[in-house]
Amino acid sequence: MDFKKHIRVIHDFPQPGIRFKDITTLLQNGEVYKAAIKQLLEQLKEKEIDLIVGPEARGFVVGAPLAYEMGIGFIPVRKKGKLPGETIEETYGLEYGKDTLSIHQDAIKPGQKILIADDLLATGGTVAATKRLVEKLQGEVVAAAFLIELAYLQGREQLKDLEVISLVKYE
Amino acid sequence: MDFKKHIRVIHDFPQPGIRFKDITTLLQNGEVYKAAIKQLLEQLKEKEIDLIVGPEARGFVVGAPLAYEMGIGFIPVRKKGKLPGETIEETYGLEYGKDTLSIHQDAIKPGQKILIADDLLATGGTVAATKRLVEKLQGEVVAAAFLIELAYLQGREQLKDLEVISLVKYE
Repeated sequence: MDFKKHIRVIHDFPQPGIRFKDITTLLQNGEVYKAAIKQLLEQLKEKEIDLIVGPEARGFVVGAPLAYEMGIGFIPVRKKGKLPGETIEETYGLEYGKDTLSIHQDAIKPGQKILIADDLLATGGTVAATKRLVEKLQGEVVAAAFLIELAYLQGREQLKDLEVISLVKYE
Repeated sequence: MDFKKHIRVIHDFPQPGIRFKDITTLLQNGEVYKAAIKQLLEQLKEKEIDLIVGPEARGFVVGAPLAYEMGIGFIPVRKKGKLPGETIEETYGLEYGKDTLSIHQDAIKPGQKILIADDLLATGGTVAATKRLVEKLQGEVVAAAFLIELAYLQGREQLKDLEVISLVKYE
């Protein structure tokens, strides 16, 4: 399936010069959305995975159905102040801007094998910060899965020791 | 399954006096998370539904796997400024505070049958605002599904013409 044709490109969002890849047009089409999740699952089928970790909010629309289908837990990573329990935090730079992510301290048991899921791999800042959060809790990140990869931003360079899976690449 | 025992109650979050119902402990357990989504599906099986609409961010972890399993589209409702395309907005009062929600103008076709999905029904402000957004786009909201209902806040009163489904009630 050609997933790229279901992704809308919006110019100058959220800042001038950014060509934002809008996945809502993909999510809106049930057949395409399901096929996208199924294809990620197909690429992950050899992996042993205990939990899926997804950064808010778009990581939830990828990670939650993956977790559901695999029958494993989903751990939300959220902006600072959003999770109600005791958290640990990581601050990182984005393609545009800066942010702090948090995870519940008791979300992961030492040694659990973790898949990070998000909508888009850009510079890799979000996923690298998410990986550091997981590793602080002594989880082992075994792969990262994305709907979209902006290959020209070389996010994979930040994730050298990880298997990185993406459905749609923009070169 | 007793879903309530998988929900953690955190006192004084996000404000003093609030007993916050934390679903992350439910999501963390893959078996329980899957059973929760399956039970919502079971209660919805007689309904004709074209699309699922979920407010960010916790609505995504309920709505996305429901949409995936049903093979229908998922439409995110987000805080003002987060959606990249042309949007319409609704401002509403929360259990604590006030907010503005938005939806893409082209997310719904007139006459489509909509399920609203979220983690928690409190006073009903979020879901009522979401319903108004759907109705402005001429969608028809046929039901609302929640993991948790705070029955003592009488959110159902705001949603009289809707079928409301919840897995766990706090009286």
